[in-house]
Amino acid sequence: MRVYNFSAGPTMLPEDVLLEAQKELLSLGGCGMSVMELSHRGKQYEPIHMECISLFKELMGISDDYYVLLLQGGASLQFEAVPLNLLIKGRADYVVTGNFSSKAYKEAKKFGDIKLTATSEDKNYTYIPKVKKKDFRTDIDYVHYTANNTIFGSRWNYIPEAPAPLACDMSSSILSEEVDVSKFGLIYAGAQKNVAPAGLTVVIVKKSLTEQTMPLCPTMLKYGVHGKDNSLYNTPPCFAIYVATLNLRYLKKFGGVKEIQKVNEYKAGLLYGHIDNSKLFSNHVAKEDRSLMNVPFTTGNEELDAKFVKESNAAGFVSLKGHRLVGGMRASIYNGMPVEGVTELIDFMKKFETANK
Amino acid sequence: MRVYNFSAGPTMLPEDVLLEAQKELLSLGGCGMSVMELSHRGKQYEPIHMECISLFKELMGISDDYYVLLLQGGASLQFEAVPLNLLIKGRADYVVTGNFSSKAYKEAKKFGDIKLTATSEDKNYTYIPKVKKKDFRTDIDYVHYTANNTIFGSRWNYIPEAPAPLACDMSSSILSEEVDVSKFGLIYAGAQKNVAPAGLTVVIVKKSLTEQTMPLCPTMLKYGVHGKDNSLYNTPPCFAIYVATLNLRYLKKFGGVKEIQKVNEYKAGLLYGHIDNSKLFSNHVAKEDRSLMNVPFTTGNEELDAKFVKESNAAGFVSLKGHRLVGGMRASIYNGMPVEGVTELIDFMKKFETANK
Repeated sequence: MRVYNFSAGPTMLPEDVLLEAQKELLSLGGCGMSVMELSHRGKQYEPIHMECISLFKELMGISDDYYVLLLQGGASLQFEAVPLNLLIKGRADYVVTGNFSSKAYKEAKKFGDIKLTATSEDKNYTYIPKVKKKDFRTDIDYVHYTANNTIFGSRWNYIPEAPAPLACDMSSSILSEEVDVSKFGLIYAGAQKNVAPAGLTVVIVKKSLTEQTMPLCPTMLKYGVHGKDNSLYNTPPCFAIYVATLNLRYLKKFGGVKEIQKVNEYKAGLLYGHIDNSKLFSNHVAKEDRSLMNVPFTTGNEELDAKFVKESNAAGFVSLKGHRLVGGMRASIYNGMPVEGVTELIDFMKKFETANK
Repeated sequence: MRVYNFSAGPTMLPEDVLLEAQKELLSLGGCGMSVMELSHRGKQYEPIHMECISLFKELMGISDDYYVLLLQGGASLQFEAVPLNLLIKGRADYVVTGNFSSKAYKEAKKFGDIKLTATSEDKNYTYIPKVKKKDFRTDIDYVHYTANNTIFGSRWNYIPEAPAPLACDMSSSILSEEVDVSKFGLIYAGAQKNVAPAGLTVVIVKKSLTEQTMPLCPTMLKYGVHGKDNSLYNTPPCFAIYVATLNLRYLKKFGGVKEIQKVNEYKAGLLYGHIDNSKLFSNHVAKEDRSLMNVPFTTGNEELDAKFVKESNAAGFVSLKGHRLVGGMRASIYNGMPVEGVTELIDFMKKFETANK
């Protein structure tokens, strides 16, 4: 029996995707080899790789002005790759709205003159600051922010106007809602939430930004090097890319990002609606800034929270424990989480509330 | 029907390993989740991760003076991570015996005073230079070499004596033969030849070498950061690590590195023996320096080579085309290649030779 997995990532993949991967695990399309065994330069693997790139372009409406890179190292490596690639003048502005944007800011400071434009740290990251173009310096290489804050459950409901290219970490929101990519210089995302198993990092970067890097940028971190070689400069994480391709095909068949966004809004609406109407559970994020993907909630009582986590787990709702920086519970409801997972969780919450009045 | 895959990497995994991964692909040990969906901080995944590290230690006889790191980015990223971590005095010596060691040397030169101690480029890398301790500078941080040259099919049959820690790329030989790890400061390897699918890079590094790095070393490339956190500093490539664990369990059950080395020597002996006795095929690597893993051979005639590649492929011997830097054919016979794959290839070579007299 499969369970509902509310982990912040890695997390649920569509069952159809897993079944297809399982079916052909020993022999991809009857070729007699597992996709794990294929040469990355061979005729079986390369079409999968190129399809992954083109499905990203199609599903996200990415123009040919951009590279779609299939890399390794996680978003954390991008915290450093972004400044190493983009700091030409040597200055960038960061907005910090959570744990990972704070990490990105700290790493970037090692490489240049980095300014903290705004932060919501004052209220434990429970809101997104309203940032205006004039808040940024004008002589900068880029502006960095994190679209969705996995730990704190907040989300930018607007794309900031900036005097320089936007560089955005979309690890926990990519492919969950429509995004106008043309407004960004660079988007990056660890794949383990909405795309594929862990081990794949997607970078979408304007080609014009890849012509120069900081002199000390390692070759393997250079976007231009990977871009010119279709991310086949060295051996890519083939199996993760293969599962991503299956998942993107599935999303396309489903109706694309537009359709999954409706489902995501519906799921989040149900869950926040229930929390707001409950006398036991509450969510502390400013309503207009709430994440569609990560929903923290609490009873306000540590013991009762622990009881909820334990009992929900026994009932087949897995990984609902909140992050230690927030406490309580957190339901991550990425693309892979079916609507039934949310409605059944709500039923469980109701029963728990009645039983613990 | 499965085929014999002679790819230089990624390449064959034992069928038992693939069957087990397939069996539990939707529900690991009955937990209701695929290993691809598990939180890397959860109770299902963590034991697999820690078992992978401890199996490496057990199978390779690695003492507690070393970290075993499970990283991303491929050996190519290590070409830069090695100098960024180890260059404290700012000087290192390199021996270049093939394409990848040449790349490692070129990347390192960006970060310090790097000396080319010796190279076999003069004879298109068909031999391994005999390097003595006195050939190296004495005031260096490390000596770098590549134990097995995947493209050229050569192998160091000795561990060089050096006045500084040895840093060695073992991508295409790790776990294929016994190695005295205590003689090395650092060993690294892309996993896609003898360990796991692509997307995992193993680094074995003496803890005492990780206390300091170059000031500009990115946090995500610091061995000490990953070592202190058991390679769970950020989300690891969980699925590749899981397959590595299955494969290491399989190797342990088989009798460990000592036993697989016997098989590898047997397979290589059969193939080189046939080539040396053949009137059609030849191998150009100095006999004492021949690789146990990668066996290049040629008819000396480009058209006939192409015919061999085509006909062998049709007969179920896949990926025998040689690398463009060498031409001809190359049979990569890693741990995952069964003895029958080699004996049947030899039978095919015999028939081909008779038919093309």
